[in-house]
Amino acid sequence: MADQQDSVSAISWDGTAITLLDQRRLPEHVEYLRIDSASRAAEAISQMVVRGAPAIGITAAYGAVLAAHEHFGSEGSPTAQRGAFARSLAELNAARPTAVNLRWAIERMTGLGTASDTLAGMAQVLEAEAVLIHTQDIEANRTMGELGAALIDEPALVLTHCNAGALATGGVGTALGVVRAGFRAGKITRVLAGETRPWLQGARLTAWELVQDGIPVALIADGAASYAMREQNVAWVIVGADRVVENGDVANKIGTYSLAVNARHHGVKFMVVAPTSTVDMSIASGVDIPIEKRDGQELLSVAGRPVAPVGADAWNPVFDVTPADLIDALVTEKGVVLAPTREKMRTLMA
Amino acid sequence: MADQQDSVSAISWDGTAITLLDQRRLPEHVEYLRIDSASRAAEAISQMVVRGAPAIGITAAYGAVLAAHEHFGSEGSPTAQRGAFARSLAELNAARPTAVNLRWAIERMTGLGTASDTLAGMAQVLEAEAVLIHTQDIEANRTMGELGAALIDEPALVLTHCNAGALATGGVGTALGVVRAGFRAGKITRVLAGETRPWLQGARLTAWELVQDGIPVALIADGAASYAMREQNVAWVIVGADRVVENGDVANKIGTYSLAVNARHHGVKFMVVAPTSTVDMSIASGVDIPIEKRDGQELLSVAGRPVAPVGADAWNPVFDVTPADLIDALVTEKGVVLAPTREKMRTLMA
Repeated sequence: MADQQDSVSAISWDGTAITLLDQRRLPEHVEYLRIDSASRAAEAISQMVVRGAPAIGITAAYGAVLAAHEHFGSEGSPTAQRGAFARSLAELNAARPTAVNLRWAIERMTGLGTASDTLAGMAQVLEAEAVLIHTQDIEANRTMGELGAALIDEPALVLTHCNAGALATGGVGTALGVVRAGFRAGKITRVLAGETRPWLQGARLTAWELVQDGIPVALIADGAASYAMREQNVAWVIVGADRVVENGDVANKIGTYSLAVNARHHGVKFMVVAPTSTVDMSIASGVDIPIEKRDGQELLSVAGRPVAPVGADAWNPVFDVTPADLIDALVTEKGVVLAPTREKMRTLMA
Repeated sequence: MADQQDSVSAISWDGTAITLLDQRRLPEHVEYLRIDSASRAAEAISQMVVRGAPAIGITAAYGAVLAAHEHFGSEGSPTAQRGAFARSLAELNAARPTAVNLRWAIERMTGLGTASDTLAGMAQVLEAEAVLIHTQDIEANRTMGELGAALIDEPALVLTHCNAGALATGGVGTALGVVRAGFRAGKITRVLAGETRPWLQGARLTAWELVQDGIPVALIADGAASYAMREQNVAWVIVGADRVVENGDVANKIGTYSLAVNARHHGVKFMVVAPTSTVDMSIASGVDIPIEKRDGQELLSVAGRPVAPVGADAWNPVFDVTPADLIDALVTEKGVVLAPTREKMRTLMA
């Protein structure tokens, strides 16, 4: 099974539906949603039931399988069935803009268009591909964990942001895969987790994962990271990514760029951990990455209660772009790129 | 009256009690608390009914008057009365550690020890001094507003953090005094306000003040400031201070230091606005400023609901220190210090 692993699993597949851990309700409630249509999968992505670039990609791949189940073998001509299937894939593809894994997974599924002569055969091929995407992500997480941990000198205090863990991926996580491997190897002693406003992924998801694994974690306000770098001996900032582009620039959760600027100022090393499914060589540099802006209410209210006055506006980009020259190491399952450049990225992805 | 001004007044005095706007309940509820004892004044400071360095100093000064009313003329010898009075002042002085205005106000009140032969006379002298402290703060705010605005070239987008406004002072505010003067002069077009976790002073207090004054304000997550500096044309970061020390280092709300590092990285100017009552020449450099650490629950829960799992720890320093070399201008009521140094600070305070 694609979902076998040590840590919590955000996504599982039983052949007819996706089961998603509802990440909006953590840590108070551990609840699973059964997603049995492509439209519901798209909605789960846009509503952030599931989030994190690799997890979004896997969910979209299974969503495409659900689309095949819905449309292939329905009434109508094979052309009509293929048209309905394509519309479902377009809906999945549009669910969120920044994480490229979504488009990557949909393209991988779409690319199978001639793999079988029959639509029933196609559905089987698509399911096998979705399971493969999931399984490969689990394996990529393990590989990146080992590669990233190898860069760290013990004993290290590390700082992470948002959630790039089991909840963001199919496996043990990208940044948290490195944290898990580093902790197991005795190299990482403690983790500072930025709470990650406005959605509090650091508090709700990262702290929850690390507490479950017995890894010491202290939550900090996002604004406290700089002071933490000055006052405590932070060795590495370790984050995931939503999109890495050709010149090595990285889109990740809002606040990541500030951490990179501060890390460089303090001589703290900065590591991005992302599978090659997150790399988008079609974009030359970070300025061209589409950055999702979400509703200002995410800042103007907290837990349903207004915290800002009527009449106040909010600017709520939920990702930012960290330029490659602030990144010390990009860890992928294909290898580590130190101080990424366009040339090194081309070599990695060749 | 000491509390006459255009903007909202956080503190007023009627001769027998302090009236404080309860800042914990803003912006949902505009409620005033009547504080009629020195102990209640100390509690209002420690519980953050009133916050902001100058406002804490003014509240402590009036608290000392309440202590005089309580103890002078009570039963017991003059020595016993003076002892009880001194204990009340010590309680006020210990209410919060970082803002030096608290100690400054208490020392100014204590310094009047021989100003009158009688205890009744002393109470009158103390009250006059407290009202003077309040009035001088209002005047200092106005002066700093004009001096700070003069540094800004129009049209400017500025970024502020926490609340250094009317709610933090006796007058129109320190940083927000500059914003108000700059907006009135047509130099400042718009304000970005960092929400300021964990207490959300930016959302609850700064946005509230600016909306009341009709100054366009957009709230941002604290982690978004760096991306805002890159994406928008931020001209100045303008903040207040809780303590400025001899070498020009500045303690202010957690997150300020990160803004200063990011401002320097992006070529954005960084202005600190603080009256000389916030300057502490007894401390040589910022590393020796006592930094208040508050309960981790301020991060582990939001609006009374847990957002982090049981077992997660939190590191919650509520101030940080910005080194002088990241500060472009320190604006005081005695004048502007560009690129503060120990020598310039000594000249300012001479």
